[in-house]
Amino acid sequence: MGAVITLTTDFSPSDAYVAAMKGVILGINPDVTLVDICHTIEPQNIAQAAFVLGAACHYFPQHTIHLVVVDPGVGTERKAIILRTPAYLFVAPDNGVLSYVIAQSSWEDAAPVTTETSRIFETQLGDLPSPLQAIAITESRYWHSPVSATFHGRDIFAPVAAHLSLGIPPEDFGEETHSVMSFPTPHPANGGQGELVGHVIYIDHFGNLITDVTAADLPPGEVSINIAGHIIEGLSHSYARGEGLLALIGSSGSLEIAVKNGSAASFLGSSVGDTVHIRKIPL
Amino acid sequence: MGAVITLTTDFSPSDAYVAAMKGVILGINPDVTLVDICHTIEPQNIAQAAFVLGAACHYFPQHTIHLVVVDPGVGTERKAIILRTPAYLFVAPDNGVLSYVIAQSSWEDAAPVTTETSRIFETQLGDLPSPLQAIAITESRYWHSPVSATFHGRDIFAPVAAHLSLGIPPEDFGEETHSVMSFPTPHPANGGQGELVGHVIYIDHFGNLITDVTAADLPPGEVSINIAGHIIEGLSHSYARGEGLLALIGSSGSLEIAVKNGSAASFLGSSVGDTVHIRKIPL
Amino acid sequence: MGAVITLTTDFSPSDAYVAAMKGVILGINPDVTLVDICHTIEPQNIAQAAFVLGAACHYFPQHTIHLVVVDPGVGTERKAIILRTPAYLFVAPDNGVLSYVIAQSSWEDAAPVTTETSRIFETQLGDLPSPLQAIAITESRYWHSPVSATFHGRDIFAPVAAHLSLGIPPEDFGEETHSVMSFPTPHPANGGQGELVGHVIYIDHFGNLITDVTAADLPPGEVSINIAGHIIEGLSHSYARGEGLLALIGSSGSLEIAVKNGSAASFLGSSVGDTVHIRKIPL
Repeated sequence: MGAVITLTTDFSPSDAYVAAMKGVILGINPDVTLVDICHTIEPQNIAQAAFVLGAACHYFPQHTIHLVVVDPGVGTERKAIILRTPAYLFVAPDNGVLSYVIAQSSWEDAAPVTTETSRIFETQLGDLPSPLQAIAITESRYWHSPVSATFHGRDIFAPVAAHLSLGIPPEDFGEETHSVMSFPTPHPANGGQGELVGHVIYIDHFGNLITDVTAADLPPGEVSINIAGHIIEGLSHSYARGEGLLALIGSSGSLEIAVKNGSAASFLGSSVGDTVHIRKIPL
Repeated sequence: MGAVITLTTDFSPSDAYVAAMKGVILGINPDVTLVDICHTIEPQNIAQAAFVLGAACHYFPQHTIHLVVVDPGVGTERKAIILRTPAYLFVAPDNGVLSYVIAQSSWEDAAPVTTETSRIFETQLGDLPSPLQAIAITESRYWHSPVSATFHGRDIFAPVAAHLSLGIPPEDFGEETHSVMSFPTPHPANGGQGELVGHVIYIDHFGNLITDVTAADLPPGEVSINIAGHIIEGLSHSYARGEGLLALIGSSGSLEIAVKNGSAASFLGSSVGDTVHIRKIPL
Repeated sequence: MGAVITLTTDFSPSDAYVAAMKGVILGINPDVTLVDICHTIEPQNIAQAAFVLGAACHYFPQHTIHLVVVDPGVGTERKAIILRTPAYLFVAPDNGVLSYVIAQSSWEDAAPVTTETSRIFETQLGDLPSPLQAIAITESRYWHSPVSATFHGRDIFAPVAAHLSLGIPPEDFGEETHSVMSFPTPHPANGGQGELVGHVIYIDHFGNLITDVTAADLPPGEVSINIAGHIIEGLSHSYARGEGLLALIGSSGSLEIAVKNGSAASFLGSSVGDTVHIRKIPL
């Protein structure tokens, strides 16, 4: 088939849960290629999962099926959905975990910064410019039976993804829905007097601080960056240049704060949500 | 071929050992699908490996080959075996690591609780009701040569699993044996006066406490659960309901103790082997 | 195709980086088999990556493509190379990460011990006895575009490996180069008076100490091993024999120091680079 299913969960690779999902998938489609995106999402951290998925998903080939199970509401009335984008199918609980995927099609609608999932709200897909389509998964004949109230990853999401990979159309799994849950993905704010106020939205395992400031957000010319009281003048080209703290446009296209052969997060004591202040250096 | 081989080890994903096994397998059967169950079993913890394998293995398709290498006795006279069950082939050292697999075919024979592998003893397969068959692996022509005394995973178990995946019958790898090592899988005890005494048999990375009490073990009606001096009244439907400590029937069909969006293990300071006391609530 | 690509990085399985590389590869060759060797190399630790790769790579089938991205110099003028050995193709930054692969073809040239990558220097391939060939990767039409200055793993190394797996010859990716960077892999020294001085070159997650002393280096007969003031008399056959500290020839063919069901590293407080002194026991 050549079908690819990716998996993103907070299940850890240490328990039997991820393997159970893969076993269920292979029982339905033995020819699928399974790729782990990440299984070490902090338990129940929807915002983190949304970011990691958004950072990895668009490097996969067309028609990849992205399966995401970070699901603190499993067994409650939260919906399970299939989201179709021009390139991919996503199978996930309807809890905001697809926020970056949705936002990448509608960047201009983004609301003020948050990395809190307490601000998740209903998003009307009809309002979005891109041809996104969502299906509320209700058709139980594609599920693993009996369905555990605590493990829809194994009993609903995995078998739905596997059946999708066989070519069964999304419409067969339930009714179209025009509203899905998402949280406003973070954006830099205008700090007044020419200052741009960005935010740390992810810290990778190297300790690099990834912000919500894209290359396009930056003022033209040289910039001065203030983070936690430290001033960085100008952007570096790579992690290996300069000494101490440095700033650069990272591989995701966003401003990153790093330390050559070290951890900026440890050096600065930074956390997700911290602010970074950017000014143009006068000529 | 469509053949699937799963891998369960205590080798960690950080060293070169798991990759060496996979390389050996792919050299023998390049068309096999390899799936990791778990490589973070605590070093030499046979009981933990037996539980994780038992929890994941039966979600895989028929004819899957489950390769298990938690092998503190490598290089000694402990046997290496192939165990055939109605659905699967298991390739493992004969040290109790297949105890849950064997017990799932003979639940009624289970002895008093233990999570200690010091209580491993010989089990007569002929006594078991299910059609299990074991082969003692002795046929060296299917091994990787030379055989290291410290890494049978790479030199015996992996190539045997790979050759099995090519369709070579188990009988070609050695003689049938009628006794294999296993430990009595834990079961709840009768505490007298209508009390059921269960045991924590596994703690997952969320901190959920998984016990040896199945749904069928519970008295009918409402139950009261006492663990570490805390009383839980009634079962919840999902992790997301209720506040503080809760109890529910988890995805493995067993009683679990959990905390909504938290770790019951941390909250209670629990360890594997701790007891949980269950009573029927009088009407 | 049946092609196999292995991946060795310091990217950790927790971020989106490894998945992005796999997505890029599958977009170019959907039929490739991807195998993780290790993603938990300590950040920027070239020597560790070189060892782990050298320990795992030769268990893979002929024509496997080994992709290695531990790349502190990404975005600088360090070269990217394809190294062809009689069995494999390696795709990596030219920073010494292939030192063990190169040394395995030219053991006799090895210089005095080092586990420091500060001693990396240019190695002339023409001087080596084995038919190694290196290509400096310059042909950008095989890259992922645009190329991020901070993530050549995704934008250069992964797509080059994927195109190689389709059968495109190494020569199409750039010009042959006759010098690559490598560090002298560690070797035991002559301590005088019949003493051999070896070095701990890797500590696995069990806490076993792997040294640079091969079985062939040992004097004939019984040996006495002194490590951190502890004396071990004679070699054991397996980890399960004896009590306390033991020494044996491990699965890589080198002398290892271990503790039965325990960690020699914790017991001795050992680090990579520590010495081990070996003497023949007089009859």
